[in-house]
Amino acid sequence: MALVVQKYGGSSVADAACIKRVAQRIVATKKAGNDVVVIVSAMGDTTDELIDLAEQVSPLPPGRELDMLLTAGERISMALLAMAIANLGHEARSFTGSQAGVITDSAHGRARIIDVTPGRLRGALDAGSIAIVAGFQGVSQDTKDITTLGRGGSDTTAVALAAALNADVCEIYTDVDGIFTADPRIVPTARKIPEISYEEMLEMAACGAKVLHLRCVEYARRYDMPIHVRSSFSQKTGTWVGNRPNPNTAPETAAKDSEVEQPIISGVAHDRSEAKITVVGVPDKVGEAANIFKTLADAAVNIDMIVQNVSAATTGRTDISFTLPTTDAQNALSSLKKIQDRVGFESLLFDDQIGKVSLIGAGMRSHPGVSATFFGALAEAGVNIEMISTSEIRISVIVGQNEVDAAVTAAHRAFNLDADQVEAVVYGGTGR
Amino acid sequence: MALVVQKYGGSSVADAACIKRVAQRIVATKKAGNDVVVIVSAMGDTTDELIDLAEQVSPLPPGRELDMLLTAGERISMALLAMAIANLGHEARSFTGSQAGVITDSAHGRARIIDVTPGRLRGALDAGSIAIVAGFQGVSQDTKDITTLGRGGSDTTAVALAAALNADVCEIYTDVDGIFTADPRIVPTARKIPEISYEEMLEMAACGAKVLHLRCVEYARRYDMPIHVRSSFSQKTGTWVGNRPNPNTAPETAAKDSEVEQPIISGVAHDRSEAKITVVGVPDKVGEAANIFKTLADAAVNIDMIVQNVSAATTGRTDISFTLPTTDAQNALSSLKKIQDRVGFESLLFDDQIGKVSLIGAGMRSHPGVSATFFGALAEAGVNIEMISTSEIRISVIVGQNEVDAAVTAAHRAFNLDADQVEAVVYGGTGR
Repeated sequence: MALVVQKYGGSSVADAACIKRVAQRIVATKKAGNDVVVIVSAMGDTTDELIDLAEQVSPLPPGRELDMLLTAGERISMALLAMAIANLGHEARSFTGSQAGVITDSAHGRARIIDVTPGRLRGALDAGSIAIVAGFQGVSQDTKDITTLGRGGSDTTAVALAAALNADVCEIYTDVDGIFTADPRIVPTARKIPEISYEEMLEMAACGAKVLHLRCVEYARRYDMPIHVRSSFSQKTGTWVGNRPNPNTAPETAAKDSEVEQPIISGVAHDRSEAKITVVGVPDKVGEAANIFKTLADAAVNIDMIVQNVSAATTGRTDISFTLPTTDAQNALSSLKKIQDRVGFESLLFDDQIGKVSLIGAGMRSHPGVSATFFGALAEAGVNIEMISTSEIRISVIVGQNEVDAAVTAAHRAFNLDADQVEAVVYGGTGR
Repeated sequence: MALVVQKYGGSSVADAACIKRVAQRIVATKKAGNDVVVIVSAMGDTTDELIDLAEQVSPLPPGRELDMLLTAGERISMALLAMAIANLGHEARSFTGSQAGVITDSAHGRARIIDVTPGRLRGALDAGSIAIVAGFQGVSQDTKDITTLGRGGSDTTAVALAAALNADVCEIYTDVDGIFTADPRIVPTARKIPEISYEEMLEMAACGAKVLHLRCVEYARRYDMPIHVRSSFSQKTGTWVGNRPNPNTAPETAAKDSEVEQPIISGVAHDRSEAKITVVGVPDKVGEAANIFKTLADAAVNIDMIVQNVSAATTGRTDISFTLPTTDAQNALSSLKKIQDRVGFESLLFDDQIGKVSLIGAGMRSHPGVSATFFGALAEAGVNIEMISTSEIRISVIVGQNEVDAAVTAAHRAFNLDADQVEAVVYGGTGR
């Protein structure tokens, strides 16, 4: 008997009809002979509605109380899901994050999981029940207050419980069929990726692929917990992140592995949520860059890419550009202005009309010419590159925001990622 | 420093504006030098909306899951209330029933409180915080599952916590000014009762006065916890149930106590939610009545009034009539039909077009003629009495449902309960 952990997001449980359909899926998994633990998010827009209510009573609600409020959302969806399963003749028991043993630190709104003690879940499974757990929430070790995990919290709950229960697989259900080689809204010929390594998935998530959150992938990688990202609207195999536990479960891909080439590139990710700041005319002295980024770190600004050009010999000054979430930009700009005199830079340039396009693939390590092909494709598409940053399995470029679609499409085509007519054509799937 | 427990019902926290107003009231109580513990119900129609959702996914949801679902309602209101108080510059901490130490049995949907361990509330008070507690909910001692207390649960939570914390007063806020001598919608001249004993309040609640629930009054009586029922929309003194702790706090009533007579009647209550069943032609033998009521008890039917006439000498048979909640009627009728042959009664009569009108007052013990005046007033108003039942401090009659208003009005006038022009006229208030 396998232990399957399933996570259903808010769109999968948006209303009573959705909840009933998800219940059927869960019961089918149980009937197939598995123990099942389900992690569920709040229904559809519930969280936004609760935040709206909070804003009506207080412009800056205390974190402890905001967490208390928001956790009501999963409480509703998990109880309804347990009822719907009971209505199908199977016993289900719902558990809050606290009851499920999700122990966190006390950082309200962005708590980190520090321990998982799923004794009550084991008890429910031993009694033959399906366990339904509220995602996104836990209880603080020190204060015993209710906490929330912040963005991607439900995915992270799922992986953390799967790891603590030594589950065979953690299935993340979403409204798309899996991870694609590019956003299908931009590249209609994008293909579903059948398998992807944790490392590549981390780069995809960090570069804007929204299906899985960075944090959940990090957790899965640490505990080597395979994630199966799939659609709650179909029975198709989705994308396996990490090592697929049993290749025989997905014969349609295994059969065709020999037909395709070694993969070089897993996919093309993009992100329009960043802005670029350039610090112009920084004196080319030891420690100036450190000064700048220490200031930003103190202001809790998240930095993504950093580019520093060699200094112009004639001036002894250099420009430092970096990208950051647009939401952090005002904070960054005002922090930097405060140190302008001390550091002695000339000015600050700000641009929020940028986009990041990233090429991701473990294969690029051993394949020369990937960047040449990438940059060549962008040039041919008339896309100007503003910044470049690379890792061993990723090349990211910053381009104008209105050129993102063209850049993604060009890169996708240049690396032969476009699907054939048949959806089932297989790409990737070896050596990971 | 006094410890004040306040309970606000759903209509007092129906929306963000209501919550902000309640927050101001709580802060005013705190600023007046009191420690404050607040019990709050779910916002307005939240509970009904959640029940509606439950019905959409399951016709008969499991009690455990229904309780999990419904407790989300108070979670939302208490967090919002804590935020609103924080926004006024005072620290407030919200607690679920479980966190507040409300320990119950495992009867989901109608759990009884078996212990109260308010350690976390004391901690919050000691730290100078206002404690906000979810009403209506607790945690089962055996299974550690979330429970709800059923009807009147929030009032009961308030009284139970007030008793456990040894509070000075338990204030129950509602949308009316207090307990009235009759329903003001029927008798516009009804007066607010300034003080009433636990026993009379119990009879009032049992006879249909909806402001306080029977259960909460029973709890208050057992622990001798004074309840102050008052409006959340005004600053007026409401009705004190039990012994008012300090008469000086309500000078407007103390000043006029000498102007009025000894009270005889506290008020007139009515109830339209009952039905009447008559078992016709019961053989007048020992044990037949016991058979009938044992059958009803086994079917978990709640019986209110019972009347048996003397048997007609010629037939050796008698009729037994009883009243019960209309919702239990079908169950009662089918249970009785099953024993018809064994008991040998002739037929069953059913009437759901009845109403109960009750006269309540400790004073009637020592005042002869109360029933004569009562029945006389009804006769004069043309109201036919179908059944009569009495206790030491109550006389109840069953009348036709469309005669309830006339009966209440006539009784209210007959016992001089009508208010003078001035609202502040005082009635009652001695010897309790």
